[in-house]
Amino acid sequence: MEKKIVVIEGDGIGPEVTRQAVKVLNAIAEQFGHEFHYQYCLMGADAIDKTGNPLPDETIEACLNSDGILFGAIGHPKYDNDPSAKVRPEQGLLKLRKSLQLFANIRPVTTYPSLQHLSPLKAQQLEGVDFIIFRELTGGIYFGKKELSEDGTRAADDCVYTRTEIERIAHLAFQYAKQRRKKLTLVDKANVLETSRLWRKVVQEIATQYAEVKVDFLFVDNAAMQIILNPKQFDVILTENMFGDIISDEASVISGSLGLLPSASIGAGVALFEPIHGSYPQAAGKDIANPLGCILSAAMLLDHLGLAKEAEAVRLGVEWTLVNGFVTKDIDPINFYFTSTIGELVSDFV
Amino acid sequence: MEKKIVVIEGDGIGPEVTRQAVKVLNAIAEQFGHEFHYQYCLMGADAIDKTGNPLPDETIEACLNSDGILFGAIGHPKYDNDPSAKVRPEQGLLKLRKSLQLFANIRPVTTYPSLQHLSPLKAQQLEGVDFIIFRELTGGIYFGKKELSEDGTRAADDCVYTRTEIERIAHLAFQYAKQRRKKLTLVDKANVLETSRLWRKVVQEIATQYAEVKVDFLFVDNAAMQIILNPKQFDVILTENMFGDIISDEASVISGSLGLLPSASIGAGVALFEPIHGSYPQAAGKDIANPLGCILSAAMLLDHLGLAKEAEAVRLGVEWTLVNGFVTKDIDPINFYFTSTIGELVSDFV
Ligand SMILES: CC(C)[C@H](C(=O)O)[C@@H](O)C(=O)O
Ligand SMILES: CC(C)[C@H](C(=O)O)[C@@H](O)C(=O)O
Repeated sequence: MEKKIVVIEGDGIGPEVTRQAVKVLNAIAEQFGHEFHYQYCLMGADAIDKTGNPLPDETIEACLNSDGILFGAIGHPKYDNDPSAKVRPEQGLLKLRKSLQLFANIRPVTTYPSLQHLSPLKAQQLEGVDFIIFRELTGGIYFGKKELSEDGTRAADDCVYTRTEIERIAHLAFQYAKQRRKKLTLVDKANVLETSRLWRKVVQEIATQYAEVKVDFLFVDNAAMQIILNPKQFDVILTENMFGDIISDEASVISGSLGLLPSASIGAGVALFEPIHGSYPQAAGKDIANPLGCILSAAMLLDHLGLAKEAEAVRLGVEWTLVNGFVTKDIDPINFYFTSTIGELVSDFV
Repeated sequence: MEKKIVVIEGDGIGPEVTRQAVKVLNAIAEQFGHEFHYQYCLMGADAIDKTGNPLPDETIEACLNSDGILFGAIGHPKYDNDPSAKVRPEQGLLKLRKSLQLFANIRPVTTYPSLQHLSPLKAQQLEGVDFIIFRELTGGIYFGKKELSEDGTRAADDCVYTRTEIERIAHLAFQYAKQRRKKLTLVDKANVLETSRLWRKVVQEIATQYAEVKVDFLFVDNAAMQIILNPKQFDVILTENMFGDIISDEASVISGSLGLLPSASIGAGVALFEPIHGSYPQAAGKDIANPLGCILSAAMLLDHLGLAKEAEAVRLGVEWTLVNGFVTKDIDPINFYFTSTIGELVSDFV
């Protein structure tokens, strides 16, 4: 198989982790007789530094012409504490999501038995945890009208949802739920927000088409508790953009190993795969970041390309490193291996 | 001292827990020679059932003429799953907050050594946890314009903040921080939201007036992780309404005993005190709910009335019941005492 993959290294530790994922993809290509053609593109603080634009048009075009996108991380502290900065790295990612209509961010939450000791939660909380969060990614308050009054004393962000936006991701989530443990939980704030009431209404309607899936509804404040108190109750969680941002990051602490978690952003056409961790600028260039989140994102990309066996090989490689104690500094601060070494070990394994 | 206290029992377990708190207040009055005059008022589902209005005008008036408000809980499932219901219990609470200008919700997050085994977090996470969340309560997306298009296909919620709204709660939070461990963390989403950028700007400015307080900034998604990963890093957390709703409920799981946590909502004039737990309708009328959250809310009310010794007596009473194993079913499902018994034990102790 021949495939065109866009690689966006991005900011902070982005370059060093994507490089390991590409190593692994190359090993897969060789092993299984595929050809992966990479095109490197700019986005984020890196793109601002080099072009003044957080998302150059060439990046969008390359993505639209590709079979899949592998992305590292975005963000730089020099922009965070300047609330009046006009250009910010994150604008690049948001624009890319919108341009490619990546309307669903999918995050599996699972635990690794060999890493349970790293979880902030007690062992009994972790048993049987296996759920997946569907976060709407191109609507809501992220993309509503933003206003700052001329005298700077009043700011506004509009949160908007249409029935169509809700329907398309809801169908996706129900389809996943059908193939899993047949439970879907909508997280909203329908006791306060009009948009949440629309979500609840549309999901209630769509639910009638998936009679085998049990649906329940949780207010987001309650969900924020339940995710820690009793995470094994969940199978598929569906939620809007802002709530999804918060609860999916919250859920990522369960496993105790943030650096390992991948995500997929999918939509109408091409899809994007990225680790959930941030750009972690303090670690950039030190060869200590955990590349497994990015490598497992590459595995999700392989799945998406229809290469299930290849994806499985990557996952086995990752598990092999973990079980044998080949781990980065975030997992074991004393006996640790470098980012690049882990990339090689997984590549050698597959 | 003579004080007028409005009691709003509210919905679900609200009546039975407020009743215990009133018992304790009566015991305090007797012990310390005060006179507390109670006026019972309606709000929530209870008020809708009895008057058609989730917040009758008489309730607002009584509150405005009181020295403090003790509130139980709000909400009934019969309204939750009907997204098109025109009247909802929560509207009562939101309107009360707005009418009384209760712009700051204050939630202490502490742990009880005798209840550590109930926490979903490992013991090492809990040590030294002692922080307080300041949630803005009368602005943001809760109170912005809400719209539903006529054909029902598009919904919108507007999130608005003004400089003045941010300043008043920020000053309050800084004043608390000054008297505590001198650290304030603003939780926002300044990389995406215009309102968050205004929050960050105003807080940066106000910070210069509190040079002894160290200020840092966390994006809300990161905050949702840090609250579980490393809760002891926090001293005072300041945040806007919606983020505060989510992260304060999330933080409430740390102690392992939701039923114990009180909160205060304060503003320009009279203040309101309520347990953070919900109306828990499944337990209503069974005499099994934990009244300590409401009793500790009464202690916060006493503090607010300038009765510090009295408040301390209540807290000692609560601790005495806990240490001696007089606990409700949520704490010990086998050897448990009834709601009313706990109320009497605390009353007898003070
Ligand atoms: C970087 C930021 C804009 C982004 C978001 O909030 O969506 C990130 O937190 C994420 O979850 O992918
Ligand atoms: C009942 C609801 C409207 C309320 C809120 O969201 O503010 C509650 O969750 C709270 O935190 O007091």
